[in-house]
Amino acid sequence: MLTFIGLGLFDEYDISLKGLEAIREADMVYAEFYTSCLMGTNLEKMEKLYGKKVFLLSREDVEQHPDWLSKAKNRNLCFLTGGDTMVSTTHVDLRLRAEKLGIDTRLIHGASIASAVSGLTGLQNYRFGKSASIPHPYESRRGTRIISETPYDTIKQNLELGLHTLVFLDIDKEKGYMTVNTALELLLEVEEKRGEGIMRGAAAVGIARAGSEKPVIRADYAENLKDFNFGKPLHILVIPGKLHFLEAEALVKLAGGPVGFMKEVE
Amino acid sequence: MLTFIGLGLFDEYDISLKGLEAIREADMVYAEFYTSCLMGTNLEKMEKLYGKKVFLLSREDVEQHPDWLSKAKNRNLCFLTGGDTMVSTTHVDLRLRAEKLGIDTRLIHGASIASAVSGLTGLQNYRFGKSASIPHPYESRRGTRIISETPYDTIKQNLELGLHTLVFLDIDKEKGYMTVNTALELLLEVEEKRGEGIMRGAAAVGIARAGSEKPVIRADYAENLKDFNFGKPLHILVIPGKLHFLEAEALVKLAGGPVGFMKEVE
Repeated sequence: MLTFIGLGLFDEYDISLKGLEAIREADMVYAEFYTSCLMGTNLEKMEKLYGKKVFLLSREDVEQHPDWLSKAKNRNLCFLTGGDTMVSTTHVDLRLRAEKLGIDTRLIHGASIASAVSGLTGLQNYRFGKSASIPHPYESRRGTRIISETPYDTIKQNLELGLHTLVFLDIDKEKGYMTVNTALELLLEVEEKRGEGIMRGAAAVGIARAGSEKPVIRADYAENLKDFNFGKPLHILVIPGKLHFLEAEALVKLAGGPVGFMKEVE
Repeated sequence: MLTFIGLGLFDEYDISLKGLEAIREADMVYAEFYTSCLMGTNLEKMEKLYGKKVFLLSREDVEQHPDWLSKAKNRNLCFLTGGDTMVSTTHVDLRLRAEKLGIDTRLIHGASIASAVSGLTGLQNYRFGKSASIPHPYESRRGTRIISETPYDTIKQNLELGLHTLVFLDIDKEKGYMTVNTALELLLEVEEKRGEGIMRGAAAVGIARAGSEKPVIRADYAENLKDFNFGKPLHILVIPGKLHFLEAEALVKLAGGPVGFMKEVE
């Protein structure tokens, strides 16, 4: 049996009672923290809480050579990830491999940033469109700096439908955790190039350390928000579409948004 | 201090360790279960686990006369809901009222059906568009049965963009929990009337009892799926858009979907 467990958002106490019980009853416990991670804890603290050794898997262990998987044929294995479980394509692939080996699988869910953002900002979950993600820029073979325009296009498509866009920010082992500031600079750079006015005067909401005791949620126009100090990672960004009155009120009263937001409501 | 706590999906063990600790330290604990509820437990079991009395609030207590709120001025109150916290507009309104009274608020997140569905079906979260919800039909003053066409329109809009639609099903105190079967019948009835071909031959995925030990996930064409027996509530529905190969494979291998799904991948 292979049990996929979502650890929730921030630290080792965000796991569900059900998840903790499954870990304590497991024969072996594996974890991967490259698709998502918990900033408020570390492996040592987790192991102490669980009373169990946790084997940390690399991307290669998960995607290329998941040899450890076959142990689940006759033992109870747990596979831990940040956020909710099975949100990454990689996990679905792992589950399909397990089923192919005749291994039963089970999911124990955890809090996900996608719904947490809705709660923290007051933006209603049914008013979000397709989500986007901003990767770190990279260099082409010729040495040109390439910025993905896909997130800009997704935001544009959602704005045309009046919908909010949740923008995931890159978690890269080498290039680091992308900040709301960098993300907004990149979007404004694409705006500069494309000139379609999508990001000009656009509202934006940055969220830092969701799930912690003192998360920071700050709303402003993109041009201003890019200079706000959100502190430590993880960060995530929302570009709101058309706001309902209550949403605008929440952004102004709970996230320090400019009162101008109230004038633009539906 | 008012702490909003999301209890997760199914039973009393889906709460996070952090949430449980906050309840145990609280002076008073309130809950509402009309916007969402946990089918695998009841108030008595929760109270036993928490070691605390839980006051159940009606819609009126929450929306019209939240007099209990002022107690949070000088005491620690917890406010419990199913799923993640603060997802309903009502909760945002409550939080704004609390802030107006000078009461500090805090959120402790729980697993949400929105991300759980993605994990359970293998459909990728960034490929979902705006979500929809299907209310029970109602009678007009003249006695005509009225079926909302809004969910049909949302599905149509998402399908045109190749996106999946998460369809929330009505939880009504009097009319009961809507099943996947009824939801599909209603969508097919709108199809019959509108004749735009949105639901004809459309794929559909039904999910029952997410978060329980044995959730049921079943994929098929809408016309067939409407006759599948999903068992007890809660149910939720997804109308997938364009499928990636891995998504189609997950629907076929993990949710009994027809192999035809594999031929329609991107």
